Amino acid sequence: MRETVCALHRELVRNNLVAWTAGNVSGRVPGEDLFVIKPSGVPYDDLTPEAMVVCDLEGNLVEGAFSPSSDTAAHAYVYRHMPEVNGVVHTHSTYASAWAARGEPIPCVLTAMADEFGGEIPVGPFALIGSDDIGKGIVAVLESHRSPAVLMRNHGVFTIGDSPEAAVKAAVMCEDVARTVHLSRQLGEPLPIPQDDIDHLYSRYQHVYGQRSQR
Amino acid sequence: MRETVCALHRELVRNNLVAWTAGNVSGRVPGEDLFVIKPSGVPYDDLTPEAMVVCDLEGNLVEGAFSPSSDTAAHAYVYRHMPEVNGVVHTHSTYASAWAARGEPIPCVLTAMADEFGGEIPVGPFALIGSDDIGKGIVAVLESHRSPAVLMRNHGVFTIGDSPEAAVKAAVMCEDVARTVHLSRQLGEPLPIPQDDIDHLYSRYQHVYGQRSQR
Amino acid sequence: MRETVCALHRELVRNNLVAWTAGNVSGRVPGEDLFVIKPSGVPYDDLTPEAMVVCDLEGNLVEGAFSPSSDTAAHAYVYRHMPEVNGVVHTHSTYASAWAARGEPIPCVLTAMADEFGGEIPVGPFALIGSDDIGKGIVAVLESHRSPAVLMRNHGVFTIGDSPEAAVKAAVMCEDVARTVHLSRQLGEPLPIPQDDIDHLYSRYQHVYGQRSQR
Amino acid sequence: MRETVCALHRELVRNNLVAWTAGNVSGRVPGEDLFVIKPSGVPYDDLTPEAMVVCDLEGNLVEGAFSPSSDTAAHAYVYRHMPEVNGVVHTHSTYASAWAARGEPIPCVLTAMADEFGGEIPVGPFALIGSDDIGKGIVAVLESHRSPAVLMRNHGVFTIGDSPEAAVKAAVMCEDVARTVHLSRQLGEPLPIPQDDIDHLYSRYQHVYGQRSQR
Repeated sequence: MRETVCALHRELVRNNLVAWTAGNVSGRVPGEDLFVIKPSGVPYDDLTPEAMVVCDLEGNLVEGAFSPSSDTAAHAYVYRHMPEVNGVVHTHSTYASAWAARGEPIPCVLTAMADEFGGEIPVGPFALIGSDDIGKGIVAVLESHRSPAVLMRNHGVFTIGDSPEAAVKAAVMCEDVARTVHLSRQLGEPLPIPQDDIDHLYSRYQHVYGQRSQR
Repeated sequence: MRETVCALHRELVRNNLVAWTAGNVSGRVPGEDLFVIKPSGVPYDDLTPEAMVVCDLEGNLVEGAFSPSSDTAAHAYVYRHMPEVNGVVHTHSTYASAWAARGEPIPCVLTAMADEFGGEIPVGPFALIGSDDIGKGIVAVLESHRSPAVLMRNHGVFTIGDSPEAAVKAAVMCEDVARTVHLSRQLGEPLPIPQDDIDHLYSRYQHVYGQRSQR
Repeated sequence: MRETVCALHRELVRNNLVAWTAGNVSGRVPGEDLFVIKPSGVPYDDLTPEAMVVCDLEGNLVEGAFSPSSDTAAHAYVYRHMPEVNGVVHTHSTYASAWAARGEPIPCVLTAMADEFGGEIPVGPFALIGSDDIGKGIVAVLESHRSPAVLMRNHGVFTIGDSPEAAVKAAVMCEDVARTVHLSRQLGEPLPIPQDDIDHLYSRYQHVYGQRSQR
Repeated sequence: MRETVCALHRELVRNNLVAWTAGNVSGRVPGEDLFVIKPSGVPYDDLTPEAMVVCDLEGNLVEGAFSPSSDTAAHAYVYRHMPEVNGVVHTHSTYASAWAARGEPIPCVLTAMADEFGGEIPVGPFALIGSDDIGKGIVAVLESHRSPAVLMRNHGVFTIGDSPEAAVKAAVMCEDVARTVHLSRQLGEPLPIPQDDIDHLYSRYQHVYGQRSQR
């Protein structure tokens, strides 16, 4: 799991989702009340599987030589309250954060967005770091939406998945659709997709897409 | 042909036309009612010539260890109805998809666009995946335009060519002009190019440009 | 000179000024009525010093296995009429072409622009390829401006320099300032720089900047 | 210190903060009235630790085979007047310079901005190169703000830090938030963050974030 989580951080860099040391990926340790997460403030180039830290579901450091990410409490809250979630990603990716700074959800005007998010990407509350407020905001929003991504107001994005890789995919796709819809809106109003069609696309994509054995 | 199609997928990545596993290239097998296409949901880094799959013109898997791309039916429909087409590319490239989300054609205001597309890049209908609707929409539009690219509403781009490489070139150029015209429109109205001049540029480019022996 | 011109084409790619095979660099052969230019329609990855072609100042092929760039006539016209020019670059770089599509000069609102261009970047006429019209347009504009770059209407950018490298630098800086001024204008009006200050900056940069022995 | 400063210039390139030879990093030599800075007009690829030059706090060349950066006087002025500063960075990074061209500060509407900058990123005066005017403008603004970055009008960005690396981080983060806030403003008004919350975030980030032993 340390290796998986370490390798997935490289995807954040490769997909231009992070600047400097911002952003983090975590993954639940199968069968245990533990998760693996990035250490705080360490450059992406210096991340190794050994540098990853292990925390319990209260966010306490259990194993590792570094302090855990400053967003550890939010990840821990999600794992405590969403047992089906096995991966969490946090970024300040540019276009998604631009929507978040206005507190505006991203409307579902692309078939790729219907596929992955099943509708709009919703907005969570403004919350300060240092308590469970961010975690509570994430869980409250995601429990009532199909979207695996939430835009936290004036902050950035949190995504979830049944694996760390799925959460990273959601973070990549969130920035991709945030960018396309932003650009489309600059020169007019994107055409809406009827809810029935969104439902059809979402259902098909969740059940049919990809290599069956890999899901 | 597997090697050609596999290598061309790298061009999609290199030209920033695709995110995650989205997008696909196919190529008709010369002299046979078959085409080679990308497998569904496989990461670009993992694509090898052997991983490419072969389908018949109804889109049925003929050879290969993976399920074919979920867009296979649209590619198959194009090959069935446009015998002069030997390559098809599909992407959700950012700027082109931004025009597609508004259902707005890209006006021909650049000489490079007149060269390659012979006029505006047209828009096709909104169509759901899972039937021949997408293929029908592509063919209906491209049969009546010089453009090798069509923006499918709320979806993305399909391009065609007399070779897979030509279709990839059209996909690259489509995103390039979609971006430039988008930016130009942000600060005012681009100046139109008279139709006579567009016709002159298109005719010259199709017959004179490049190394004659390579065309 | 073949090696220099070949190597400078890589700078176009590295600085994201070109898509597919668009764009070209040329350099005058010292002491001869000849210049070296890119062959037409050859991919950037396949360019070698040997693939570069040599033309006379009428644009006729003198040496080389490939057809010269389709923009050769414009380069030749510049070399015939501007004896102080030893390098010419042509691109369709995105932001500069967006200004060109509106036929709008880029106002001088950045000190880096005053340094390199000595004022606004001017616009040349719409001109069709296939005669001397493009070359005439370039020369008419650049002879009456300090700027080494001209935006050709609905087309792209041509830059000149006392060496091919200087022309490439002008192409890189032209796109850089085109982008910054475009973005600045999106959210309001950039503040003008007084003409006296532009003159002061331009004069100082042309005489003092860099390592003296390298100029 | 030559090695540190040389290596940090690569971060400017990697983070897309500089075009051609623009931009520079300097670092104070510990315990001496000297600083190391980039030579003028040398390509980033050719920078080596040996090519870096050493200047005294008046900006005079003390050691090195090249002329110092044309911005040396501004760096020297900062080191003379801000003894707590050990690193200075100057760039024309795109989005930050777009705000600078309008003479408009970047409002603090992102938690990451509150963390790093403690409020808005302020604007300094228009100043010509060649005297102490740029240095005076930087110091006057930064002495009265928590922000380690200042947008110099119609010019670009200067950042400071208690180490050269901290100044580079500030330059990277400045461009990152300049871009996100720019994009957010394009489609409406970003929501403000209350001053109390900005203060709380800034205080926590400066004292808690990262690995304690590394600060």
